[in-house]
Amino acid sequence: MAKIAYFNGQYGPHSQAMVHIDDRGYQFADGIYEVCLVIGGRYWDMEGHLARMERSLGALRIGMPMGVASLKVVMNEVLRRNRLSDALVYIQVTRGVAPRNHPFPADEVAPALIMTARRFDLDQSDTQAAKGVGVITAADIRWGRVDIKSISLLPNVLAKQAAVEAGAAETWLVRDGLVTEGSSTNAWIVTDDGVLVTHPKGHEILGGITRETSLACAKDLQIQVEERAFSVSEAQNAAEAFITSATNLVTPVVQIDGVKIGDGAPGRVALRLREAYKERARRVSGA
Amino acid sequence: MAKIAYFNGQYGPHSQAMVHIDDRGYQFADGIYEVCLVIGGRYWDMEGHLARMERSLGALRIGMPMGVASLKVVMNEVLRRNRLSDALVYIQVTRGVAPRNHPFPADEVAPALIMTARRFDLDQSDTQAAKGVGVITAADIRWGRVDIKSISLLPNVLAKQAAVEAGAAETWLVRDGLVTEGSSTNAWIVTDDGVLVTHPKGHEILGGITRETSLACAKDLQIQVEERAFSVSEAQNAAEAFITSATNLVTPVVQIDGVKIGDGAPGRVALRLREAYKERARRVSGA
Repeated sequence: MAKIAYFNGQYGPHSQAMVHIDDRGYQFADGIYEVCLVIGGRYWDMEGHLARMERSLGALRIGMPMGVASLKVVMNEVLRRNRLSDALVYIQVTRGVAPRNHPFPADEVAPALIMTARRFDLDQSDTQAAKGVGVITAADIRWGRVDIKSISLLPNVLAKQAAVEAGAAETWLVRDGLVTEGSSTNAWIVTDDGVLVTHPKGHEILGGITRETSLACAKDLQIQVEERAFSVSEAQNAAEAFITSATNLVTPVVQIDGVKIGDGAPGRVALRLREAYKERARRVSGA
Repeated sequence: MAKIAYFNGQYGPHSQAMVHIDDRGYQFADGIYEVCLVIGGRYWDMEGHLARMERSLGALRIGMPMGVASLKVVMNEVLRRNRLSDALVYIQVTRGVAPRNHPFPADEVAPALIMTARRFDLDQSDTQAAKGVGVITAADIRWGRVDIKSISLLPNVLAKQAAVEAGAAETWLVRDGLVTEGSSTNAWIVTDDGVLVTHPKGHEILGGITRETSLACAKDLQIQVEERAFSVSEAQNAAEAFITSATNLVTPVVQIDGVKIGDGAPGRVALRLREAYKERARRVSGA
């Protein structure tokens, strides 16, 4: 069965999913995206993702391509046509197609929506989490509004590529001596006192949806949280470290720039949070 | 006659110029571009633009989509098929099409090249230069490698839109109290002593090709140049101000954040430089 994508207002074979070269996403990175996790046919944190999508679009003054109810219909249809029940749904919205010019098009243009889905293997993710991952660090040279989940991702691409070349899973980005977040994940540590620490929200980090749910899980588990920035050296000397994102859920970090975290095995708090996240996501997931 | 574009290795109607949604330019802004000015069928500063294209691609480790000689053939063919002799040729190269994933594709993929051309009206540009333009200023929140002419242009879009809404032609970007450059142009002032001042090259500005040629023209004209940053207030109190880019050539700035520059008319040095630029570009232009 050919993979199916949604593009230009229709469903069609992924291999033929094309957009016009004057789509402002292609020439100006003038758009946003979301990645939603679906397990057993049910969305995890969907409301959070769709709410952030509206916030990102609002920050760029791009209209919603359709109402939230219609978006959910398209999401379900993309899943159904691809016969997927465990999947990552990718949603991208750009300002639309207009003759090339930096400012917003003078004429009203319709935002362009694409949607794709691909299989997600939760078991494989669990296996990775049980092993833990390594991260490296690099200067955070991204722009000043990374809270907008834009497709202006070139710095993130370069940071992730650096991780791959170092045999690591992620690059933690460092600004003014402090870790902001990973190239596509939020960064966390657990102190010797068992306190979770992660960078506070603001223009310097993406307000991760999985980050938010993890904070809620920590509350449920009565784990203390401090939303403050930490240095690489504090992280290297922490009891535990981990990353969060829709595709990584909660994944323990066992090494930072080659330095073992704790005893070098995934931390107990991180694994406990991962289970709590899965349990909570299942409980509140939507169809 | 339908406009013709080059895309996916072929010439075709611009209206049907499509690229795949998995083109990394569309989902990651993972690509670069150039805009070349053609007057009377001859390229201005073409060698500079093609050399910078190679530098930008090299910085991102994207291969050249074809050799320089072949690129020139495609450029000429796009011009010919559009029956244009005064034009802006737009060239964009991305890392190519691959399943969505942040790092570079593990498998070798061919870079994707698109090329378009549109009419350029030099008389209209001269008229604008004779009037001068206004600029506003805003915080420079772009990433740390704007010397790479990437399509990761969302901050530039927002800055240019702010200019349009303020009735200005450009936004000068300010970092640590100093003007780096405009959203799509380089920024210059002329001191009371007749010295040209513009931000030095580095990761904080795009090494403009028109900037380079303007520096050469200044040398020809025996005008002293200082490559150093200046503040907004120094610019507002300068004798003259102007912007340079392939599409603006040398264009006088007569107002910065509502403050008149000099007597509010285009500066003599700027207009002299514009004429020298045109004269030099014509002399060294290539077919």
